[in-house]
Amino acid sequence: MKREKWRGWLTRFGEAPSAEAGSPSDMALLELANGCAALGLSVPETRLCPGWGEDFEISLSDCRVRIAGGDPGLLYGAYAYLTAMACGEAPPAGRRHPYYPLRMLDCWDNLDGSVERGYSGRSLWFEGGALRWDPARIATLGRLLGSVGVNALCVNNVNVRDGAQALIEELLPELARLAEAFRPFGVRLMASVDFSQPLMHGLPTADPLDPDVAAWWRVRADAVWAAIPDFAGFVVKADSEHRPGPFTYGRTHAEGANMLARAVAPHGGKLVWRAFVYDCAQDWRDHSTDRPKAAYDTYMPLDGQFDDNVLLQVKHGPYDFQVREPVSPALLGMRDTALALEVQLAQEYTGHQIDLYAMPPMWAELRETLPPENVRAVAAVSNLGRDDCMTGHPFAAANLFGYGRFAWDPMSDPRRVLVQWAKLTYALPEAQRDALVDMLMDSRAVYEKYTAPLGLNWMVRPGVHYGPSPEGYEYDLWGTYHRADRNAVGIDRTAAGTGYVCQYPDALRDLYADTDTCPEKLLLFFHRLPYDFRMRDGRTLIQRIYDDHFEGVEQVERMAETLASLDLPEPDRTEALRRMDMQLANAREWRDVINTYFHRLSGVEDARGRKIYQ
Amino acid sequence: MKREKWRGWLTRFGEAPSAEAGSPSDMALLELANGCAALGLSVPETRLCPGWGEDFEISLSDCRVRIAGGDPGLLYGAYAYLTAMACGEAPPAGRRHPYYPLRMLDCWDNLDGSVERGYSGRSLWFEGGALRWDPARIATLGRLLGSVGVNALCVNNVNVRDGAQALIEELLPELARLAEAFRPFGVRLMASVDFSQPLMHGLPTADPLDPDVAAWWRVRADAVWAAIPDFAGFVVKADSEHRPGPFTYGRTHAEGANMLARAVAPHGGKLVWRAFVYDCAQDWRDHSTDRPKAAYDTYMPLDGQFDDNVLLQVKHGPYDFQVREPVSPALLGMRDTALALEVQLAQEYTGHQIDLYAMPPMWAELRETLPPENVRAVAAVSNLGRDDCMTGHPFAAANLFGYGRFAWDPMSDPRRVLVQWAKLTYALPEAQRDALVDMLMDSRAVYEKYTAPLGLNWMVRPGVHYGPSPEGYEYDLWGTYHRADRNAVGIDRTAAGTGYVCQYPDALRDLYADTDTCPEKLLLFFHRLPYDFRMRDGRTLIQRIYDDHFEGVEQVERMAETLASLDLPEPDRTEALRRMDMQLANAREWRDVINTYFHRLSGVEDARGRKIYQ
Repeated sequence: MKREKWRGWLTRFGEAPSAEAGSPSDMALLELANGCAALGLSVPETRLCPGWGEDFEISLSDCRVRIAGGDPGLLYGAYAYLTAMACGEAPPAGRRHPYYPLRMLDCWDNLDGSVERGYSGRSLWFEGGALRWDPARIATLGRLLGSVGVNALCVNNVNVRDGAQALIEELLPELARLAEAFRPFGVRLMASVDFSQPLMHGLPTADPLDPDVAAWWRVRADAVWAAIPDFAGFVVKADSEHRPGPFTYGRTHAEGANMLARAVAPHGGKLVWRAFVYDCAQDWRDHSTDRPKAAYDTYMPLDGQFDDNVLLQVKHGPYDFQVREPVSPALLGMRDTALALEVQLAQEYTGHQIDLYAMPPMWAELRETLPPENVRAVAAVSNLGRDDCMTGHPFAAANLFGYGRFAWDPMSDPRRVLVQWAKLTYALPEAQRDALVDMLMDSRAVYEKYTAPLGLNWMVRPGVHYGPSPEGYEYDLWGTYHRADRNAVGIDRTAAGTGYVCQYPDALRDLYADTDTCPEKLLLFFHRLPYDFRMRDGRTLIQRIYDDHFEGVEQVERMAETLASLDLPEPDRTEALRRMDMQLANAREWRDVINTYFHRLSGVEDARGRKIYQ
Repeated sequence: MKREKWRGWLTRFGEAPSAEAGSPSDMALLELANGCAALGLSVPETRLCPGWGEDFEISLSDCRVRIAGGDPGLLYGAYAYLTAMACGEAPPAGRRHPYYPLRMLDCWDNLDGSVERGYSGRSLWFEGGALRWDPARIATLGRLLGSVGVNALCVNNVNVRDGAQALIEELLPELARLAEAFRPFGVRLMASVDFSQPLMHGLPTADPLDPDVAAWWRVRADAVWAAIPDFAGFVVKADSEHRPGPFTYGRTHAEGANMLARAVAPHGGKLVWRAFVYDCAQDWRDHSTDRPKAAYDTYMPLDGQFDDNVLLQVKHGPYDFQVREPVSPALLGMRDTALALEVQLAQEYTGHQIDLYAMPPMWAELRETLPPENVRAVAAVSNLGRDDCMTGHPFAAANLFGYGRFAWDPMSDPRRVLVQWAKLTYALPEAQRDALVDMLMDSRAVYEKYTAPLGLNWMVRPGVHYGPSPEGYEYDLWGTYHRADRNAVGIDRTAAGTGYVCQYPDALRDLYADTDTCPEKLLLFFHRLPYDFRMRDGRTLIQRIYDDHFEGVEQVERMAETLASLDLPEPDRTEALRRMDMQLANAREWRDVINTYFHRLSGVEDARGRKIYQ
């Protein structure tokens, strides 16, 4: 079994239809024809229901399948039917609609073709300062996104630099052509904009309360929607990591966001404002500033002040896509703001699409503390790129697939989602497929074990964010400290410490504040503890650190055996095995560096006498 | 007092003569006319003495000064006379000649205009893949180099990449024009070459014992000397930090160097072979490999096997231009090889030409263990660039000046050299000049105090090599470990440890091996010691570390006061003060990070109760 080029989970349906197909409902008919031919099924009846929007309904009567749906609902119905049949499941009967109306994919692509935190090659649509793409590739991607219901694609890096401002100016005609390419798949474009963009046009200020600034943005928005009538909106990273923003002019983020929101509102556009403000020039000597507190401290006082078409996009944890973080308290506290939950498919801190790290189990955990209704939209940082395998590791496609499934239905069962992806992607015998899915289900827990312990985070190589560097961020400017010494490790974030825990609702605050009840996986996120602290099973903290790191590597070794036993098609098999070798080396490096680091500090030997290097 | 553009220590002589002046002896007459006019002196008689080469003789009789000299000796005589007079000294009477016949400046300039480890702006002669330079700037530089007797300039980075191979191929005509520009100042060009260069021309191998390879290099050398008859030779970095070399073909470095040496020998050329081979992919778990041993281990067995026109260029210490290293044992042991001593004016690890770090005192220290006669040539990595101030910090010019003086006479008194530079550069009142020179004389000891302690080294930010990162290199691939733990710090390099100390002659070996006799500044280079180790003055090691770091910052604070009190001309004053602010911040960061680091490890409080951050 061999595939020339990996193209995601719908390759069995043949080449993706040309993006010139027209509307999503037209595409639905094309895809049903393709898919049914491939699966040997008769083509269902379809009915376009104006006004249904994204809804669809699959029904069976007289042995005939009927799919009704709006535009693009009919396309979602077609994909739901085809993927169910391809998986050997019953077609999902009844009327369906997505839980979140906006399901974004945020691409950190730069106009020069590079991708910030991209591990899958260069940008799929930018190169050399212009938009350039392979239509067949975009059709394939559009199909993949449409098949899991991702409906908005922000095309450029939230760090808008190096001419990317032109996307909503002279590059608009090119952007409109890209929008045409994605439109038949129900995918609407968005763009990241530069808050200070008016300064590039002779305005003396970008002050959001300046009428000329507001007028400039209205004119810009009018031009964008004139070129792309179904444009979904703007994304803004302001006052964050040296990006310009309203703070420059003494304005609040509500004032900044609302000004832009009013420019896009007449067109039905959304204004997505990223809540990622923190002191990125912190002095490590300063123990009172605590970066995880930043989002809540900055935005909670603004709760209720944002316009209706503003979405405040908040990262799932209070830091920055670490392996183990508690839910961001801003997501729990801001009940009068339309929030968008942000996750990161790009494995910036989670293995660079070299190490296996399947995210659906993580998102399922997330909903235990973050009820899905707390947020109104979801966004994921993209893991896409120009490599043949558009996600770096062929299995990393499961995260894109799973993200779409969770965005459509946040109560999705992660295992069921991964099984579906595996069935669609590979024709494996059931036992092998189960082995693959088991491996993916465990992969995050395994990665967590061999990297930074118990929610400590940031023991990663600075800049690169792959591989261990226990003190790499310890004396740096980023507010990312663990302050390990010869006796203890971690930051006290209780009321007696930085007080971060007080940002949570009472029940969670009490849970986290008490070392007896705090989930052990978050223990070092909330507490500073001595190495001889007793874990609930009687082990000391230091022994738990050692054990986790030894076990993590043993688990990767077993994963490597499992992987080798799978009859995967080429080139996926070779590519996955190659990356597994790298993961093994990475896991061993993490184990040895972290164990040595804590052994040097604590002087405590491993109770089981395993090798800890000096 | 104000100078528009800083141009080094000879600005008072007016614009440098055009490089079209002809021979160095012609230039001597021009410079004498310029200098004597500026100083209000009558022009000395001159006599060109064929066969004298670099020698000159200044004599006085009947109140007339006479300068005799070869070509370029006459030019050196002219500069010796003029600088002595400008300094208010008596002209140096008697016949003089340089101690080292080859006095190289190695520029790590890349063809794209960047400079590896350059802190003075972009390349003075490369840009955009070609040679481009400002003739007036090159004349100024030629004058500066000629005035201190630097007589060879290797124009390109020892890491020959990105098309720099073309310098000895299609770019030869341009290189010849640059040679013309420097020739009147007695400066001959050299080029770094790529050992694997024949592979770029269809040869299947670069094996030094392959006759076709040797023939290729002979043809190349013939072409180079045809274009530039006084070309000085090639510089090679082979089998080092991923550069190609003879090891690829199972050949020794003597075989590799001699093959190239025979290509250049018919033209009187030198082949400079850098002895900088070590394992740059070391596993930190490996305690038996010890990087400082590498040069001696690699080259000592080859002693006596190099051709006469090979110079083996050895860094002054066994690591890589750290603040405090012992003399490289290869420089002491290889008595049957022509050695070139390599120092680094570019302040890669020594403050980036932001922090003050005058090197003449360091070189004077060096000669206490390395007799000048042990080596046959000297080379310095350049600190030059395209900034108005060609050395980044205006005072960093003192290192270029001092290097020339030491290369001419290694027994030069460092204080006298710095006084000369200060007198030539600034018209300061004597007390101020003394204060400036005192500051420079102390500057290395001060930098040493606030950075890594007692010869430990490598506590610097990886890659950048500025600012502290105590464990930045601790788990990396570069063989640069200190292995600090809660009890002790340092590597045992005695016979009981890695055995590095056994590479030294007996007396030095015994001196270094014993903690009672080892110079304290090198204690942690040679020994692993507990924090409560007693220093000779009764302090503990940990207290000495704290004290040095507090004192270092206090000394920088005093230097800042001194600097502010000097009536320096602009723009030097503003520039020096601006950099001093940065040095102060750097020194405080080093102090706090290093003290905190060792406090966290050791748990020991400062005996004097000063602030150590948690």
